[in-house]
Amino acid sequence: MNKKVVVALGGNAILQRGQKGTAEEQMENVMSTARQIVKMIKGGYEVVISHGNGPQVGAILIQNELGSQQVPSMPMDICGAESQGLIGYMLCQSLGNLMEEEGVEGRCPVCIVTQVEVDPKDKAFRNPTKPVGPFYTEDIAKKRMKINGESWIDDAGRGWRRVVPSPDPKSIVEAGPIKCLVNEGYTVIASGGGGIPVVRDEDNRLRGVEAVIDKDLASEKLAQEIGADIFMILTDVPKVALHYEQPGETWLGHVTTEELKEFSRQGHFKSGSMGPKVTATIRFVEAGGEEAIISSLHEARDALEGKSGTHITR
Amino acid sequence: MNKKVVVALGGNAILQRGQKGTAEEQMENVMSTARQIVKMIKGGYEVVISHGNGPQVGAILIQNELGSQQVPSMPMDICGAESQGLIGYMLCQSLGNLMEEEGVEGRCPVCIVTQVEVDPKDKAFRNPTKPVGPFYTEDIAKKRMKINGESWIDDAGRGWRRVVPSPDPKSIVEAGPIKCLVNEGYTVIASGGGGIPVVRDEDNRLRGVEAVIDKDLASEKLAQEIGADIFMILTDVPKVALHYEQPGETWLGHVTTEELKEFSRQGHFKSGSMGPKVTATIRFVEAGGEEAIISSLHEARDALEGKSGTHITR
Repeated sequence: MNKKVVVALGGNAILQRGQKGTAEEQMENVMSTARQIVKMIKGGYEVVISHGNGPQVGAILIQNELGSQQVPSMPMDICGAESQGLIGYMLCQSLGNLMEEEGVEGRCPVCIVTQVEVDPKDKAFRNPTKPVGPFYTEDIAKKRMKINGESWIDDAGRGWRRVVPSPDPKSIVEAGPIKCLVNEGYTVIASGGGGIPVVRDEDNRLRGVEAVIDKDLASEKLAQEIGADIFMILTDVPKVALHYEQPGETWLGHVTTEELKEFSRQGHFKSGSMGPKVTATIRFVEAGGEEAIISSLHEARDALEGKSGTHITR
Repeated sequence: MNKKVVVALGGNAILQRGQKGTAEEQMENVMSTARQIVKMIKGGYEVVISHGNGPQVGAILIQNELGSQQVPSMPMDICGAESQGLIGYMLCQSLGNLMEEEGVEGRCPVCIVTQVEVDPKDKAFRNPTKPVGPFYTEDIAKKRMKINGESWIDDAGRGWRRVVPSPDPKSIVEAGPIKCLVNEGYTVIASGGGGIPVVRDEDNRLRGVEAVIDKDLASEKLAQEIGADIFMILTDVPKVALHYEQPGETWLGHVTTEELKEFSRQGHFKSGSMGPKVTATIRFVEAGGEEAIISSLHEARDALEGKSGTHITR
């Protein structure tokens, strides 16, 4: 039996820092990402892909705002759904082309528009922390706080930025069809951008909310729900480090969840970067997953084979 | 065995004429559309849904243009992918909520981002005819014709509008996973907006093109590829008419493909409206489909039971 791996792609898999975000740039990045994923598939792994959407949904939010003179702006849940279509399409096309070139059979890529349920009582709704969209002037920020009731923060020197709640993922609404396709051998792309955040309202109906779910935590939930063997987070660095970019920097090879929790308590992992990744890997292993891996895109296949990356086990 | 029906929703299923296109309006329309679809499902039909995207992709194109001062505009294939995410999400959420309320089990809705392959040698590429996006002044149109090599037409009195090729659909790239999910009992939403148009280039790779595939023809191709029993097109009128809105107007109940072809030769069906619908139904039945139906959204369930609509058979 092939091992089932959920791979959470970092933002750099689709758009690199300093790039403008043209379709050509994104397609080129996605193509080299697809190359790494096809390597894993050729290594005998069943790969499920999730991804971030920060720059893409950021661009869609700007387009919505500047377009609002002529067409109504869409709320954040719908913008997120649009970004899933955008990125899912690019990944499907690139993966499909590469698989055909390399003679990989029966692992056709397919993208599922994915809603992720969160708890309307999640404490994140009382304390929005996740920055979204571009930087604005204080004037605009204060106007939008007043008129739309939005939360904005002053990001030291760079300007003001809207912040939205980042609630914890409770369940993947489309887990059933995703699991079905994975079991039939398809390469599924799902839960893009942390999924479209939805809550169950008083009428027991799902509805979208203005929030962003952390993509690594959502990917972990997906990994659990489809019964993945391995959960892998791909990011900018090849391994998790203690004392990152400081004297005594130490790269971790193998760690247990208990060791990682202790390092976390010691404050080694920042809340905006490695923190949620570490939390996600601990959750996966503690929920019964065989192994979680944090690695870089270019060492992904090696990491799966134990030659690279940080490996988290019980 | 339940009958498998591919339902092609008309534009009015998501946005009605005269509406601005706010998220609330669209969600409300989609909810009443979902109500009709759930009626079919409760009637024992396995429903696969496709839909148009004219107003939605039109809005995304405007947002891209007005946003282009700040973020790069995306080409039409990517805008189409975004509209599939947008509409697919709304349909999934509404259908899921209604099914839960009405106790429909195991028919979970799921949206697949869908590419549709067209022939790069299709004669449509030499003769763009499909209007997209909003109306512009002659100045802007002429500038864009010159700079971008686009085709524009003067739409008598209303202004200038961009036209793109409308090639014939050759195959549904994601037919495999769609069929898999349909056979497992899921309610699949696919091939939105006629699908994302792709061609196979000289390197044998798929790539997106600036075109719009007719959504009824793409839906018919989908119906054929997944082996649907019934192909149903839902539109503004309850039946196909001869001498539509003219003296001697006659609504058709049952017709054979031969009769319909003869009516078509006599010029009863306009190329921009009933023409492609009639062509799609003829194709489906001639390819071995049991029955094609043209009806309105609100008579859809009745039409499936033979009490309404125009029924096309051999």
